[in-house]
Amino acid sequence: MQKQAQTSVPIHWPIANRWSPRAFGTAPVSAVDLTKILEAARWAPSCLNEQPWAFLVATRGQPEEFQKALSCLVEFNQGWAKNASVILFGLAHKVFNSSGKPNTYALHDLGLATASLMIEGESLGLRTHAMAGILPDRIREVFGVPEDFEPVTALAIGRPGDPETLPEPLLVREKAPRERKSLDQIAFGGQFGKPFADKGL
Amino acid sequence: MQKQAQTSVPIHWPIANRWSPRAFGTAPVSAVDLTKILEAARWAPSCLNEQPWAFLVATRGQPEEFQKALSCLVEFNQGWAKNASVILFGLAHKVFNSSGKPNTYALHDLGLATASLMIEGESLGLRTHAMAGILPDRIREVFGVPEDFEPVTALAIGRPGDPETLPEPLLVREKAPRERKSLDQIAFGGQFGKPFADKGL
Repeated sequence: MQKQAQTSVPIHWPIANRWSPRAFGTAPVSAVDLTKILEAARWAPSCLNEQPWAFLVATRGQPEEFQKALSCLVEFNQGWAKNASVILFGLAHKVFNSSGKPNTYALHDLGLATASLMIEGESLGLRTHAMAGILPDRIREVFGVPEDFEPVTALAIGRPGDPETLPEPLLVREKAPRERKSLDQIAFGGQFGKPFADKGL
Repeated sequence: MQKQAQTSVPIHWPIANRWSPRAFGTAPVSAVDLTKILEAARWAPSCLNEQPWAFLVATRGQPEEFQKALSCLVEFNQGWAKNASVILFGLAHKVFNSSGKPNTYALHDLGLATASLMIEGESLGLRTHAMAGILPDRIREVFGVPEDFEPVTALAIGRPGDPETLPEPLLVREKAPRERKSLDQIAFGGQFGKPFADKGL
């Protein structure tokens, strides 16, 4: 199913096509494609090139690992993410490697890496769905995550699936139109709150 | 100048080509291209679709606004960002619209939107350079940013420029190879720190 972004001007196709489904196809994600999405994350920019990110990856091809990863999601997410081909956790390194001082850009920069990963995935015909609904303490315990890393997100990754495979309440959400604030609500010129477009965009 | 990411497998070209230069060309960024990069940010995913981001945009075509924006960067960044065509500030909305409670994903989600914007820019032949070196209090004052929004980043955006236009110390940095941790240092399987590739990637 396509749910292309509704934009006033056309944007780059993998960015326009990306959305967060809950239905996934059963075909596995190839090792090459998985490497590509991780490479895309790896080359994201970051504050002082600190690269304050790490990823825990589990594929459905290794059922025990996959179950372990699934068990680190809140129950609602387990219900649909079990059909994805890959579960991946995004972790932020909370302190600078060099100084040990807090890195206030760690979460932001994990976001930069994660969006690169998602757009790379879309360019390969994969779908990605990022979740905040995770069990951070369980992730720490199960995967031995050190104190200075923070589990932030999970991503379900797989091939596009048939929405009709979803139970009714999820099917409704899957088919609902995507919604965003207008550009005027997020892009300002001169003063906060003053639409940038008014400047002659 | 090209500084393509060194990846073990080819990745989507605007992601591979993106890097953070300090040399910019003088041609302006068109209104359509500026709209495209903002649209790309607008359609990024976010926790509960909160879209906790806002952007302050200044173009060189409006010199007074542009100077105002430049003055909100640390001095070192002013030195080179003055040659960009657009200065843009990324702000995170620190609380949920609905509940007023802290949104711990605000910085992460601003990162998602910002990477979309940067990749869109690269797809249009533009270069982007994100900076943490900003003067948040000055941004608040100059642009009237409300208390619940946090100035996080600035981006210099423009056309690729000639590195030789940069002063010596910046020229050296401009030409230096890009560096990243290896995949084995950031992508783990089964346990934190255990390279995922060992699992048969």
